Amino acid sequence: MMQQLTIIKVGGKVVEEAESLNELLNDFVQLPGLKLLVHGGGRSATKISERLGIETTMVKGRRVTDAETLKVVTMVYAGLVNKTIVASLQARGCNAVGLTGADMDLIRSKKRVGGEVDYGFVGDVVAVQTQQIAQLIADGVIPVVAPITHDGNGQLLNTNADTMASALATALAAVFEVSLVYCFEKPGVMMDQNDELSVIPMLDKNAFQKLTADGVIVEGMIPKLDNGFAAIDAGVRKVVITNIEGMKGGHLGGTALI
Amino acid sequence: MMQQLTIIKVGGKVVEEAESLNELLNDFVQLPGLKLLVHGGGRSATKISERLGIETTMVKGRRVTDAETLKVVTMVYAGLVNKTIVASLQARGCNAVGLTGADMDLIRSKKRVGGEVDYGFVGDVVAVQTQQIAQLIADGVIPVVAPITHDGNGQLLNTNADTMASALATALAAVFEVSLVYCFEKPGVMMDQNDELSVIPMLDKNAFQKLTADGVIVEGMIPKLDNGFAAIDAGVRKVVITNIEGMKGGHLGGTALI
Repeated sequence: MMQQLTIIKVGGKVVEEAESLNELLNDFVQLPGLKLLVHGGGRSATKISERLGIETTMVKGRRVTDAETLKVVTMVYAGLVNKTIVASLQARGCNAVGLTGADMDLIRSKKRVGGEVDYGFVGDVVAVQTQQIAQLIADGVIPVVAPITHDGNGQLLNTNADTMASALATALAAVFEVSLVYCFEKPGVMMDQNDELSVIPMLDKNAFQKLTADGVIVEGMIPKLDNGFAAIDAGVRKVVITNIEGMKGGHLGGTALI
Repeated sequence: MMQQLTIIKVGGKVVEEAESLNELLNDFVQLPGLKLLVHGGGRSATKISERLGIETTMVKGRRVTDAETLKVVTMVYAGLVNKTIVASLQARGCNAVGLTGADMDLIRSKKRVGGEVDYGFVGDVVAVQTQQIAQLIADGVIPVVAPITHDGNGQLLNTNADTMASALATALAAVFEVSLVYCFEKPGVMMDQNDELSVIPMLDKNAFQKLTADGVIVEGMIPKLDNGFAAIDAGVRKVVITNIEGMKGGHLGGTALI
């Protein structure tokens, strides 16, 4: 029987403010079984960019990553945010290791070209190398993955953390029984953005398409759900969209993709 | 019979300028056997600090590390410099993984207190956890180690890279036949700082003490040699102080500690 692996993707404010990060990590270490954490860090990157006099340009919620911005996100995601989380997990008795896609060739990507917008040094995932990370996970090590990848030719690339979580879940589904949890500020996919009790407990692709067409599901939630359904299609056992409360099995429980 | 492991410590300009870094990595990948790289990044940290309006204070060649400076060195060493090296090694077919002391609890340190100078968030090495890194090395993974450690209570600490290289060499000497090479700008320990041909080919502790008393060996070379002799005393097979030419077996060959 396969061992269970829970992959948590955390982004937004949760991961960048000391108080909510501590709350998150306290809950994370309580989760049973094998674990892997994928994090963002966009707010810190924007702040550091500002202090360095580098202009931040976002298009459709995605960061345009010129050479200077790539240095900033590499510093912030792979350095400051990643190592802060790793040291905090070690303090809680979790044997964490911080990784980017370049480390152990874990996630290789291809620089995005063409399209309406030139996003610069942004990479789309093309391959996941699971063997060594799976061995580490099986040995009880907890990977903490920063949203930076590489192209195999020495170029680091800024990569969407939701997509990386989905790609890791899909690859590791060959070795483990994987649950993927997208943990963010809201309790799940909601029918009404102003009513936390309107969380949709289960969502299938037909409903997703209909709710998107009707304008109920909008903006950043659309690619997040695309990533989630891709994981389900590829054999990931369970995908849930929720907040910290839902991650630890709170009363709302989030939105499960089916 | 134990497998051979070469630990290279690189610091100074070598690691921070694209051209010399590429030269270094080209030579590094040619070294036979198992390998581990420890790097610095001080010049970049000073530059980024300056751009962020954070004053850099050095005392006896060591960086005074207040809370803001700790963020900078974590970003620069563990993020920018480390991941640039990792991606460059991957491009050369080397399966590198970037690590700090916090990752897999590799190097635990204790915040330095007391002494004439308050260095702030600076840690002295107290323990090396070799099991998992030794397994990775034996599996052909090449650790690239940034000079950041942790205290086990969630605090990251800035730590001298020479000392980390010595501590890693000492710990890994239980598993591998370790050679430790301190690679910097000069060809070795020189009798005359202005004459590259004055490299001392072999140096023992007596000669080290005498040359230090005589003012021939000065400044940063003294702690580097202290670290080197500590490694020799602890069972490291070979310790050499040299430059890139010496690392790859050039005609000067550097200074071997005996």
